[in-house]
Amino acid sequence: MMIVMKQDATEDQFRAVINRIESIGARARRSSGVEVTTIAAIGDREHIARLELDGSPGVDRVVPILKPYKLASRQICHDACTVLEIGGRKVGGDHFALIAGPCTVESRDQLLTTAHTVDAGGATMLRGGAYKPRTSPYAFQGLGVEGLGLLAEAKARTGLPIVTELMDARDLEPVLEVADVVQIGARNMQNYALLTEVGRSGCPVLIKRGLSSTLEELLMAAEYVLKEGNENVMLCERGIRTFETAYRFTLDLTAVPVLKELSHLPVIVDPSHAPGRRDLVEPLSLAAAAAGADGIIVEVHPAPEEAICDGPQQLRTEDFARYARKVEAAAAVAGKTSFRRRDGVVAEIGDVGSSRFAA
Amino acid sequence: MMIVMKQDATEDQFRAVINRIESIGARARRSSGVEVTTIAAIGDREHIARLELDGSPGVDRVVPILKPYKLASRQICHDACTVLEIGGRKVGGDHFALIAGPCTVESRDQLLTTAHTVDAGGATMLRGGAYKPRTSPYAFQGLGVEGLGLLAEAKARTGLPIVTELMDARDLEPVLEVADVVQIGARNMQNYALLTEVGRSGCPVLIKRGLSSTLEELLMAAEYVLKEGNENVMLCERGIRTFETAYRFTLDLTAVPVLKELSHLPVIVDPSHAPGRRDLVEPLSLAAAAAGADGIIVEVHPAPEEAICDGPQQLRTEDFARYARKVEAAAAVAGKTSFRRRDGVVAEIGDVGSSRFAA
Amino acid sequence: MMIVMKQDATEDQFRAVINRIESIGARARRSSGVEVTTIAAIGDREHIARLELDGSPGVDRVVPILKPYKLASRQICHDACTVLEIGGRKVGGDHFALIAGPCTVESRDQLLTTAHTVDAGGATMLRGGAYKPRTSPYAFQGLGVEGLGLLAEAKARTGLPIVTELMDARDLEPVLEVADVVQIGARNMQNYALLTEVGRSGCPVLIKRGLSSTLEELLMAAEYVLKEGNENVMLCERGIRTFETAYRFTLDLTAVPVLKELSHLPVIVDPSHAPGRRDLVEPLSLAAAAAGADGIIVEVHPAPEEAICDGPQQLRTEDFARYARKVEAAAAVAGKTSFRRRDGVVAEIGDVGSSRFAA
Amino acid sequence: MMIVMKQDATEDQFRAVINRIESIGARARRSSGVEVTTIAAIGDREHIARLELDGSPGVDRVVPILKPYKLASRQICHDACTVLEIGGRKVGGDHFALIAGPCTVESRDQLLTTAHTVDAGGATMLRGGAYKPRTSPYAFQGLGVEGLGLLAEAKARTGLPIVTELMDARDLEPVLEVADVVQIGARNMQNYALLTEVGRSGCPVLIKRGLSSTLEELLMAAEYVLKEGNENVMLCERGIRTFETAYRFTLDLTAVPVLKELSHLPVIVDPSHAPGRRDLVEPLSLAAAAAGADGIIVEVHPAPEEAICDGPQQLRTEDFARYARKVEAAAAVAGKTSFRRRDGVVAEIGDVGSSRFAA
Repeated sequence: MMIVMKQDATEDQFRAVINRIESIGARARRSSGVEVTTIAAIGDREHIARLELDGSPGVDRVVPILKPYKLASRQICHDACTVLEIGGRKVGGDHFALIAGPCTVESRDQLLTTAHTVDAGGATMLRGGAYKPRTSPYAFQGLGVEGLGLLAEAKARTGLPIVTELMDARDLEPVLEVADVVQIGARNMQNYALLTEVGRSGCPVLIKRGLSSTLEELLMAAEYVLKEGNENVMLCERGIRTFETAYRFTLDLTAVPVLKELSHLPVIVDPSHAPGRRDLVEPLSLAAAAAGADGIIVEVHPAPEEAICDGPQQLRTEDFARYARKVEAAAAVAGKTSFRRRDGVVAEIGDVGSSRFAA
Repeated sequence: MMIVMKQDATEDQFRAVINRIESIGARARRSSGVEVTTIAAIGDREHIARLELDGSPGVDRVVPILKPYKLASRQICHDACTVLEIGGRKVGGDHFALIAGPCTVESRDQLLTTAHTVDAGGATMLRGGAYKPRTSPYAFQGLGVEGLGLLAEAKARTGLPIVTELMDARDLEPVLEVADVVQIGARNMQNYALLTEVGRSGCPVLIKRGLSSTLEELLMAAEYVLKEGNENVMLCERGIRTFETAYRFTLDLTAVPVLKELSHLPVIVDPSHAPGRRDLVEPLSLAAAAAGADGIIVEVHPAPEEAICDGPQQLRTEDFARYARKVEAAAAVAGKTSFRRRDGVVAEIGDVGSSRFAA
Repeated sequence: MMIVMKQDATEDQFRAVINRIESIGARARRSSGVEVTTIAAIGDREHIARLELDGSPGVDRVVPILKPYKLASRQICHDACTVLEIGGRKVGGDHFALIAGPCTVESRDQLLTTAHTVDAGGATMLRGGAYKPRTSPYAFQGLGVEGLGLLAEAKARTGLPIVTELMDARDLEPVLEVADVVQIGARNMQNYALLTEVGRSGCPVLIKRGLSSTLEELLMAAEYVLKEGNENVMLCERGIRTFETAYRFTLDLTAVPVLKELSHLPVIVDPSHAPGRRDLVEPLSLAAAAAGADGIIVEVHPAPEEAICDGPQQLRTEDFARYARKVEAAAAVAGKTSFRRRDGVVAEIGDVGSSRFAA
Repeated sequence: MMIVMKQDATEDQFRAVINRIESIGARARRSSGVEVTTIAAIGDREHIARLELDGSPGVDRVVPILKPYKLASRQICHDACTVLEIGGRKVGGDHFALIAGPCTVESRDQLLTTAHTVDAGGATMLRGGAYKPRTSPYAFQGLGVEGLGLLAEAKARTGLPIVTELMDARDLEPVLEVADVVQIGARNMQNYALLTEVGRSGCPVLIKRGLSSTLEELLMAAEYVLKEGNENVMLCERGIRTFETAYRFTLDLTAVPVLKELSHLPVIVDPSHAPGRRDLVEPLSLAAAAAGADGIIVEVHPAPEEAICDGPQQLRTEDFARYARKVEAAAAVAGKTSFRRRDGVVAEIGDVGSSRFAA
C-alpha cells in the first residue's frame, strides 16, 4: 500500500502516518519526489489492509498495491488454470462447457423435452431454475421443491449434470440433493451468508457477476467460497448495467480474458439475459466463445412464446443443434479443442471434421 | 401496455399478437399511424404484466404504460405522504429524521459515547451495525449478538430508537429484539427472501438502494415488504455506481424529489458511504436536506482514526452538534419545519431561533 | 408519439394536450384504459418531434414511438445492407475490412514499415493519425500536415486506402487530399459543425461512437452526414465508459448486431482503445469478428515501446499476419466469406485453405 | 509515477524498466515488499507523463501519482479561490452567481421579457443560446447571428452580462462581440480546437462537464484554456450519464465540493438539463447551492409551453423571483454571504432580512 501525502503535509502528519503503519507491525518507507512525497507500507497483506489512512490529516490518497483476493488469484496456481470435473464433464483449460436448458422449470414435459434436445445437440450440462429471483413480488417465483424433483428426473434420464440456482440458505439441503452445480445469481453475488454456506457445502458453484460489480468484487465473492475450502468455483459474466437502453444489460466480453488473466478459475458467459432477445443470443455466444470463454450457459425452451418467464430470450429447441455447432466453431478459433461429441463422449478437436466450419 | 409493431409486420403477426392479448382476458386496440402501427393491451395490470410479447414475430418493441408497483406508489395514498412514528419519533411530511451513530458497533465505550453525543446534538435515532457486509471475507464482520446487546443498552440509556442491519434471515429473531428499524443494505436490496421475512415481521424497515438499482427496482423491493402487510418502509438513497473514480459512489440527489413524487414513502439519504470521506459528508448532507429528503442517516465515531471500518468517512463526535444545526437549516429551506429539540421534544420551526441560521 | 396522462388529469388538461397536437396538424387519439388514459399523436414525424409535451399539466410522460433517424435506418434500404467501395475495397455485406496501422504517424520509417507489413499481412486499409485529440494540452498533438504527406506516400507505395482523423473543420481541405476515409473521433461524435462539413465533402466517413453515446445518438450523428447527401458512412464501436476500472473502456459488442439490425450502414470495431493493452486486442478482435462486425480497425506499430502515444495497446508488426489469419477465421464463423488475399485481390472464403483454421 | 512489477518479473525486465526511466532523465527507485516490488519514477512531471510503460514486459500496472493538470489545480493558487469579475459581477469565494435566461433565443419579445424579469428577480447574468447543439439534424439549430443581436440589445437594456454558447471556432468573432462569458457545451468539452481558440480570446469561459467526463478530464479541458493565458474559467456540472432512466441525466453534486478542493476555479451548477423537468429544477437548485456551488445557471421562459426547445425544463418567468429567494437561502447555509440585491447592487448577507428564510 502506498500513501501519497499532500504537498503541504506537516512533519507531524508524516510522523503520525508512519507511527500508524509501524503500530501494526509493518515497515514504512518514505520517498521524496520533486513535487510529491509518498510513504510505502510494507508487511503482512491482511494487516496492511486494515490500515484506514484515507482521509487522515496530510494524506492525499491511498493507493492499494496488492490485490485483495488470494485464493482466486492466478498466482496461487503458479499460473495454471483450474480444470473442474463435474459429473464426468470437464470445464476449463481446453475444455469448453455448453450449459443449456430452460430459464425456469415449468413442467415435466417442458423440462424433459428440452433436456433430451440439448443433450442430443451437444450440451454438457442442463440448466433450469426451481427458485427464481423476480423483481416483482407478483411474478411467478418458480416451482420450488417440485421443480427440483423434475430436474432430478431429467438428470436420471439424460445423465446431464444439473446447474440450478440457490437463493436462500434455508433451501440448501434440497438443492444439494439434485444440483451438480449451485448457481449464485447476480443479485446475490454479495449475499455473503449464502456464499459462505455454499462454500461449506463443497458443491461446485457458478457465481454470476452482479449487475454493477467490478471484476475485483466478483473475485472477492469467489474468495468467500474458496476460503471455506471449496475449490470448485466458476465465474460467470452475464452483462452489466450501463447507460445504453437499447438492450437490457451490456455484455462485457473484455471480462473474459481479463478474469482468466487475474484468476485460475473457469469463466462462463451467459448470452441470454443481457440482450433479453433471442436474435442476439447467437452473435453474442459466438463472440463469447471467440473471446476465450470456458463455456456458455444459455436458455432453451420448446415453446418460448408460452414460457412463464423470459420467453423472448430463450432459444427454440429446434435451433439448438445448429447453434451448438456454430459455438464450437467459434470456440475452436480461440483454441478450445475439446468438446463433447454427439454420442456423449468427449472429442478432441482433431477429430472434428472441417465441415463443422461450414456451418 | 403498448406493442409497437414492425413496419413490415404481416396481418398474421398482428392477429397472433391480438389473440395472445385476448387470451389473457384483456382487450386489444389497434392504432394505425402514418409510419407505424401500435396495439394497446387494456385490462388487468397483473395479467398484462405476464404477456411476454417482446421478440414475438412482427413486434418491434413493447412499451410498458403502468408502473409495476402498486402499494409503494403515490396513488395508493391519494397523494398523501406516509408519516411513520418510530419510538415516538416521526419521519415524513414535515418531520425530518436525523439518524446517527457509528458504522460498526465496536465496543461498549465507543457506542455509548457516540449515542450520548448524538442524542445531545439532536439526533432522532441511533444507527450501528452488529452484522457488517464486507467485500472481503478476511475483514471484520461485526460483533454479532454481542453488538446487539450493546445497542440494547444504548437504547435503554438514551431512549433513542435503534436502526441496525439484518443480512441473514436466520438472524431475524435476535435483531428484532433490539431493532426499532431493520436496515436492508444495498447489497441485499434484491435479496427477496430477506425482504419477505422483514415484511412479515411488521418491524419498520429502511431499504437502501442497490449500487446500480433503478428507482423502479427500489420501489419493487419496497413492494416485497409492503405486500406482506408491513407498511413501515423508508427508502434510502446511498450513492450509485458510475464511471467517476474521484469518489466511491455518486450520490444521486435527483432520486429524492423523484422518489417522493412516485411514492408516498419517506426518503432518507446516507451521505457517508458515497463519498467515503469525512470532509464531503457535510456538503452532501446539506444538499440532501435542501433537496427535500425526509431524513439523513450519518456515521459518527468518537475516534475515527481508530475505527475498525470506514473510519475515514465517519464524522467526529465533537463536530456533531454543529453539523446537526447546519443540516436543520438546510432542511428548513426545503420546508421541513419539525425537528427534535435538544431537550428531547419535537419543536416546530416557528420555535427555532434565527440564530440557527448563523451556523 | 404517445402521451400517458396522469390518473388525476382534468378534462381541461386533456383538452389542452389535444389542442396542442391538433395545432401542429396532427391527429390526437384518446385511449382510456382501466387505470390509465393515453393520447396518441399521429401525423408527420418531424412536426410531432417538435411537440414538447413533457411536463405539461396532466401529462405523466411522453413515449416516443418513431425512431428519430430516417436515412440511417434499415427501412430506408428495404432491409438491404450498404456495401461501400473504397479505393477498390468493399466493406459491408459479405466483405470484411481489416484496417490497420499506427495510432499516430510518427516518422516516415515507422509509417512505411507498418504500411508494408499490414499490406502483406492482409489489411485492406491503412490507418494513421496526423491530428491527435489528446486529453492533456501538454501531450504530443500529431505531426499535422507533415503527417498527411507521409500518409500520401504510404498510400502511393502500397495502394492501401487511407483512414485518418479530422478534428477541426479548418483542416478539412488538406485532410481530403489524402484521406479515402475521414475518421470522426469519439470525442467529436457530437461536433455537429464537423459532421456537417464532412457530410458536404462526400468523402467516406468512419464515425466513432462517443464514450457514453447511445446507439441512437450514434445513428443521429450518422444522420447529420447522410442528410448532406453523403451516403458513405461507417459506424464504429470503440468501447463505452462504465463503472469497471479494470480496463479503460468496456467494448460493447452487443452494439454490433443491434446496429446492423437498426441500420443499413457497415459496423466496424476498434479493439485497441477500449482495453488499452496489447494482450487483450486479439481476444476482443476475434469476439468482434464472431459477433458479425463488418471490419476491424486496429493499431499496429513496429516498436510499440518507443511509440509516442498509446504504445501499450499497439500490436507488433511481426505479429500482424498471424493475428489477421485468426481474425479471418472468426469472421468466417459469422458468415463473412470475402477477404482480401495476400496478393492483393479479394478472395472468396471457398478459396481459403482449411489450414487457416488451424492457427 | 509508480510501476508495480509482476511477481514473476525477471531481473532483465526490471533492468529494462529502470533504463527506460533513466533514459528520460528521471530517477528510478526500487522498493521490494514481501509480495510485490515497485519502481518509483521520480523527476520532471511532463517527462514522466510520456513514459508509456503499461503493458511492458514484467509490468503489472502503472500508478500515476501526480495530477495531470497544473494551472487548474488548487496548489497553483496557494489554496486560494479564484474570484472572477464579469461585467461588475463577482463569481467565486463568497459571491454567488445566478445566471438565468431562456434555453434558446427565440424572439425579441421572448428574450427581453425574460431578461427584465430575471434582472428584477436577482439574476446576476443573462443566459441564452444563439447556436444550439441538437442531437437531431432536423431540429431547430438556433437563430445564429440574429440571436446574438438580440442578446446585445438585452444587455444594453438591463446591464446584465451575457453568457452564450460557442459551437464552432469559425463563429468566434461575432460571439465575442456580445458575450461576456463564452459557454462551451458538454458535447464540446473535449473539442480541443475550440478550447484553444477560446483560450486565446481571453474572454471568460464557462466549460460544461461532458456527459461522461471525469472531473479530471473536465480540469484538463480547463487546462487547455488556461494554458493559452486565459485565467477566466468557470467549471459547470450539468449531470452525467448513468444507468438510471427515470431522469435524463444524473446531477452529480459530489462534484461541487470535490472540484472546489481540487481546483481554484469557480464551480457552477446547471439544474435544468439533467432532470429535464421543471418541477425538479427547484429542489436540485437548492441542493446545489447548499452543497457549496459558486452559482447556478438556470433556464427561464415566459411561456415554456411554446418554447421551441427544452420547454418542459424551463422555469416560468412569474416564478423566478420566489425561486431566486429560496436559492439564496440555501446558498447562505453553505456560507455564501454575498448576493446581488434587487436594486442592482451587491449586498452582504448581513443586510438580508431574516424574512428571506421564511420563503
